[in-house]
Amino acid sequence: MPAQIAINGYGTIGKRVADAVAAQDDMRVAGIAKTKPDFEAKLAVRKGYSVYAANRDAVAKFEKVGVRTAGVLEDLVKGVDLVVDCTPEESGYKPLYEKAGVKAIWQGGEEHALTNLSFNAAVNYADCIGASFVRVPSCNTTGLIRTLYPLDAHFGIDRVVAVMVRRATDPGDSKKGPINAIEPELEMPSHHGPDVQSVLPNLNIHTIAVKVPTTIMHLHTVTVDLKKPATGDAVLDVWKRFPRITFVAGGDGVKSTAQIMEIARDLSRNRADLYEIAVWKDGVHVVDRTRLYYFQAVHQESDVVPENVDAIRALLELERDGRKSMEKTDRSLGIGLAG
Amino acid sequence: MPAQIAINGYGTIGKRVADAVAAQDDMRVAGIAKTKPDFEAKLAVRKGYSVYAANRDAVAKFEKVGVRTAGVLEDLVKGVDLVVDCTPEESGYKPLYEKAGVKAIWQGGEEHALTNLSFNAAVNYADCIGASFVRVPSCNTTGLIRTLYPLDAHFGIDRVVAVMVRRATDPGDSKKGPINAIEPELEMPSHHGPDVQSVLPNLNIHTIAVKVPTTIMHLHTVTVDLKKPATGDAVLDVWKRFPRITFVAGGDGVKSTAQIMEIARDLSRNRADLYEIAVWKDGVHVVDRTRLYYFQAVHQESDVVPENVDAIRALLELERDGRKSMEKTDRSLGIGLAG
Amino acid sequence: MPAQIAINGYGTIGKRVADAVAAQDDMRVAGIAKTKPDFEAKLAVRKGYSVYAANRDAVAKFEKVGVRTAGVLEDLVKGVDLVVDCTPEESGYKPLYEKAGVKAIWQGGEEHALTNLSFNAAVNYADCIGASFVRVPSCNTTGLIRTLYPLDAHFGIDRVVAVMVRRATDPGDSKKGPINAIEPELEMPSHHGPDVQSVLPNLNIHTIAVKVPTTIMHLHTVTVDLKKPATGDAVLDVWKRFPRITFVAGGDGVKSTAQIMEIARDLSRNRADLYEIAVWKDGVHVVDRTRLYYFQAVHQESDVVPENVDAIRALLELERDGRKSMEKTDRSLGIGLAG
Amino acid sequence: MPAQIAINGYGTIGKRVADAVAAQDDMRVAGIAKTKPDFEAKLAVRKGYSVYAANRDAVAKFEKVGVRTAGVLEDLVKGVDLVVDCTPEESGYKPLYEKAGVKAIWQGGEEHALTNLSFNAAVNYADCIGASFVRVPSCNTTGLIRTLYPLDAHFGIDRVVAVMVRRATDPGDSKKGPINAIEPELEMPSHHGPDVQSVLPNLNIHTIAVKVPTTIMHLHTVTVDLKKPATGDAVLDVWKRFPRITFVAGGDGVKSTAQIMEIARDLSRNRADLYEIAVWKDGVHVVDRTRLYYFQAVHQESDVVPENVDAIRALLELERDGRKSMEKTDRSLGIGLAG
Repeated sequence: MPAQIAINGYGTIGKRVADAVAAQDDMRVAGIAKTKPDFEAKLAVRKGYSVYAANRDAVAKFEKVGVRTAGVLEDLVKGVDLVVDCTPEESGYKPLYEKAGVKAIWQGGEEHALTNLSFNAAVNYADCIGASFVRVPSCNTTGLIRTLYPLDAHFGIDRVVAVMVRRATDPGDSKKGPINAIEPELEMPSHHGPDVQSVLPNLNIHTIAVKVPTTIMHLHTVTVDLKKPATGDAVLDVWKRFPRITFVAGGDGVKSTAQIMEIARDLSRNRADLYEIAVWKDGVHVVDRTRLYYFQAVHQESDVVPENVDAIRALLELERDGRKSMEKTDRSLGIGLAG
Repeated sequence: MPAQIAINGYGTIGKRVADAVAAQDDMRVAGIAKTKPDFEAKLAVRKGYSVYAANRDAVAKFEKVGVRTAGVLEDLVKGVDLVVDCTPEESGYKPLYEKAGVKAIWQGGEEHALTNLSFNAAVNYADCIGASFVRVPSCNTTGLIRTLYPLDAHFGIDRVVAVMVRRATDPGDSKKGPINAIEPELEMPSHHGPDVQSVLPNLNIHTIAVKVPTTIMHLHTVTVDLKKPATGDAVLDVWKRFPRITFVAGGDGVKSTAQIMEIARDLSRNRADLYEIAVWKDGVHVVDRTRLYYFQAVHQESDVVPENVDAIRALLELERDGRKSMEKTDRSLGIGLAG
Repeated sequence: MPAQIAINGYGTIGKRVADAVAAQDDMRVAGIAKTKPDFEAKLAVRKGYSVYAANRDAVAKFEKVGVRTAGVLEDLVKGVDLVVDCTPEESGYKPLYEKAGVKAIWQGGEEHALTNLSFNAAVNYADCIGASFVRVPSCNTTGLIRTLYPLDAHFGIDRVVAVMVRRATDPGDSKKGPINAIEPELEMPSHHGPDVQSVLPNLNIHTIAVKVPTTIMHLHTVTVDLKKPATGDAVLDVWKRFPRITFVAGGDGVKSTAQIMEIARDLSRNRADLYEIAVWKDGVHVVDRTRLYYFQAVHQESDVVPENVDAIRALLELERDGRKSMEKTDRSLGIGLAG
Repeated sequence: MPAQIAINGYGTIGKRVADAVAAQDDMRVAGIAKTKPDFEAKLAVRKGYSVYAANRDAVAKFEKVGVRTAGVLEDLVKGVDLVVDCTPEESGYKPLYEKAGVKAIWQGGEEHALTNLSFNAAVNYADCIGASFVRVPSCNTTGLIRTLYPLDAHFGIDRVVAVMVRRATDPGDSKKGPINAIEPELEMPSHHGPDVQSVLPNLNIHTIAVKVPTTIMHLHTVTVDLKKPATGDAVLDVWKRFPRITFVAGGDGVKSTAQIMEIARDLSRNRADLYEIAVWKDGVHVVDRTRLYYFQAVHQESDVVPENVDAIRALLELERDGRKSMEKTDRSLGIGLAG
């Protein structure tokens, strides 16, 4: 019998995790919980998900606009094996899950301290097998881990400085700005550096974040001082052996994040998502043998989605081999865009 | 045997028409022709389409980057029943098609005079049956026809003034602006008014166009003086009887074009497209019994796609009943989003 | 002795009114009041304005960051002849002004009902002479009145439909969006129509508003059914006789609001402001003798500034002839850009 | 008698250099040359500049739209002491200037090789005294030099990595994008690194450029490995001793480039320009004693303008002391915004 999974929070990440879980054969979506009966709730019903109101008060709101609920979050949680919590940060549902005795996965908006265990399928799947609670770090952090871990394993890393040029808000939002400005995050390092270290504790990394008026992707410019000499081709060869990294080329007309998202659309991906980190092949440069510079683009809405699926397998011990879980997940989501 | 269709031009519209044709059971994509071997060409190969170079000179460019071509456009055209021409305006391929004796469909970038027959499935399918050449008007024009034709048929229209707030460029493009400005089209009426009249010759319509810094949809504000009195609800009831109009509501959180595109993504539409014209239910207002105002959003990349499929059926006489063709097309594309 | 003027609220409008008042010889800035000691407060000090904290609580905040205050708003109000209230809507300071026995001017964020008297220098200066309280309507409303009043006076107006394509937020703000969407105001008419009627009560006008991702100007597309036949040139001739309308031309390279703002910068206007309404000469079209269509651009930050100065003169009876007040104001601000 | 200066090219930089020259007492604008009689040409006439057509062919175009020319560029060049060439890159006017025997200054669009002498007032004024030809590097390069030179002089610099998040186009332009994308410059280093070395030949610098959808400023994130230990305060103290660096603070509400440009407007600067490089005080961080990170914003339209004025003085030997020239220039332009 497939594992029963609840999705608490059905926004950008929650709705994607729901669809990804639904695409697996060893787990199923028992239901999703939501605070507001907006168009996303209506589409969830249409998709066939059992919709639960986040609490008793919310039930009335759902009923008022004709969205039938299957109960409230508490009911949902009782009957499942695991909850994927995709609510906004510090929503505070942990006691509820503990009381119900269910396992849970949180997203990167939460602090590492909430679970003391942060997950990346390629790095520490084995360490998370059977755990009760785990956190999947944020989209940017996951993106950095994806390309830095292979480099550290193969060449050794002395120091990383990553400047993250961040999208300001998601495509489905129209309230936030800026419209015509660039906004630096004055605190340093940005939270992403320590966050990468929650998975790669020995990595010397400094992160800097800048927000710009776009909705579609983050772009990272990464400076890595390697311990062993490398070439651009050698770096690309290492990355090619790791999953969830894909390659694009300015020479093919992929000049910006706009064309990367266009590729995801042309691949007929669900929601036009790109779960992989996209690295520009012709933007990888090694100077003075050990100084590596590269650009990567991160689809903030979806890169953590396959990680959540793998985390479910690890916690529920549905699969003990991380590599096999990743392959299974990737096959189900159509991941594997040739570079 | 399914009809053999060539797609000449594989950009925003061409690649969508190709996929839509491929989704039908009475026609198939014989091949697509392209001038440049960029990432879109590579993805076409990956999708399994036979790729033809636009001309002999282009073949070398394709070979140089390892994109195998099945020949040149001229070869492709010889073996098909019909070409859908999705090349930029005034590309001048008509003589080639005439020489090869194949039927052809052009897009809205071309003048009505090229074919003297402009197509809209709901309005004049019957008039186009068996024709050799037809033009599908532009996305904006098609959008206006979709909602105005039912109004004219049921209430009669005295006068229309449509202000089209246009997206500046498509999501996959990153070269064009403006970034932070509003640009009026000073010529009046914009070409859309006469273009609507190419399908609805007796409609008194004046169109005004303004370009704004967004990539995702056009938004029309339409002022209609009706001949017979109406109410907002009566107007909505009429539209509901027509295909390819869908309804959204500010009350459901659909505040802008951003949320409409999010709906298309959440519906798992191919490329996150929305073939229907989206009308805000709570934005339809009738003042003084005959003065109707409404907002509609047009997905510039895709609303004409189902029209192209129907046009193919009409020209090749694959189906003589327009309503049946539309139903078949819509079913294949997943059209029919409940309002 | 010049009239003593207080400015309560020192944001987008307040700081401009302060500078405009300071540029007159018959009035002076007694002080400005502010709630927060941010960079704008520091620049106010630097400019030599006496800065008052909005209330006792705010004083500490100012002192903490070293911005010296001259007292609190209440102190300021006591010693002046008139307060220009540029605080956010419904700030509720009216009782304070009444208690202090000072006259006051509010901005368009407030309802007409607050004062029952809305001001436009060209239309009803005489009606406002000696009044205690008056409201200057919003930037968009003022923009519509500027060009519609002359048309109504000379040709008569049957009906107006104005579609306002609005900037989403001001250039100095970086919090609000949308970044990549178009947002219609679903309520109709937008508040601007009734607001125009607060000054021009007999005008038949319907207004429609759409918000777009730009910070620099609003653009209006105006449809006017005239009572008497006109030509484009005749319309331009009428407008040229009225102040605070300026003319631009696509033929000169003024394709969008970007170039209009560039003109304001090139004219070395204070803060690069454009107090006039800009009409595209080559965008004025008359169809069927009485149907007029035109585009105008409104600099949302500054078009009401000269109106505030004139309103001060009217209320304090510094000048009984509105035309003379306008000329004086315009001369001081450098208004009079030749078309 | 003041030196006679010609400005060839009257776009973003040219018109600003003209106004800055006009503000000096030891030089005057003999005339400006332009290729097209657009609105900028009309405003130049209005400002009282003598306008010359770039060539004989252009004269007719000017006459046609009623813009009176004083002759052609060749006439203008003959009568002056120096030409500031603000034409697009590789316009190729050098032979014309050589033939006329006049000195000339080019902008950063040109290669260093054109003059073999690149100018920065604070760094190498003395080296340029009496030179015939000099180049003022681009806005970004000038911005980097302004803050790096003091650091190198006081602490010594081992290595710099600068990630430049660039505005896509200027505010007065509405043709270029991207609207909703981030575009990396895949070539590395970007031209800025070698360009900085044209003035600071021994600096070890790597520059990376990314283009984003904004019009108003560039934002640099700079990583500097210092030779001697430093603190953030010590770094700020060094910068305060150098001209044309100004300081802003997130704590004052300056969260983004939007608020920096607002400051320039509030200071009533001509064209709302900011000639200084703006450094966020609360964004300067030193980690591990020698690793300095900071953010700076560059007003791409104007930071090179005072450099051009100083370069004129150096070439024409109007002033032999660079520091005095800078003070004179800065006073005339209102530079000296306290941090």
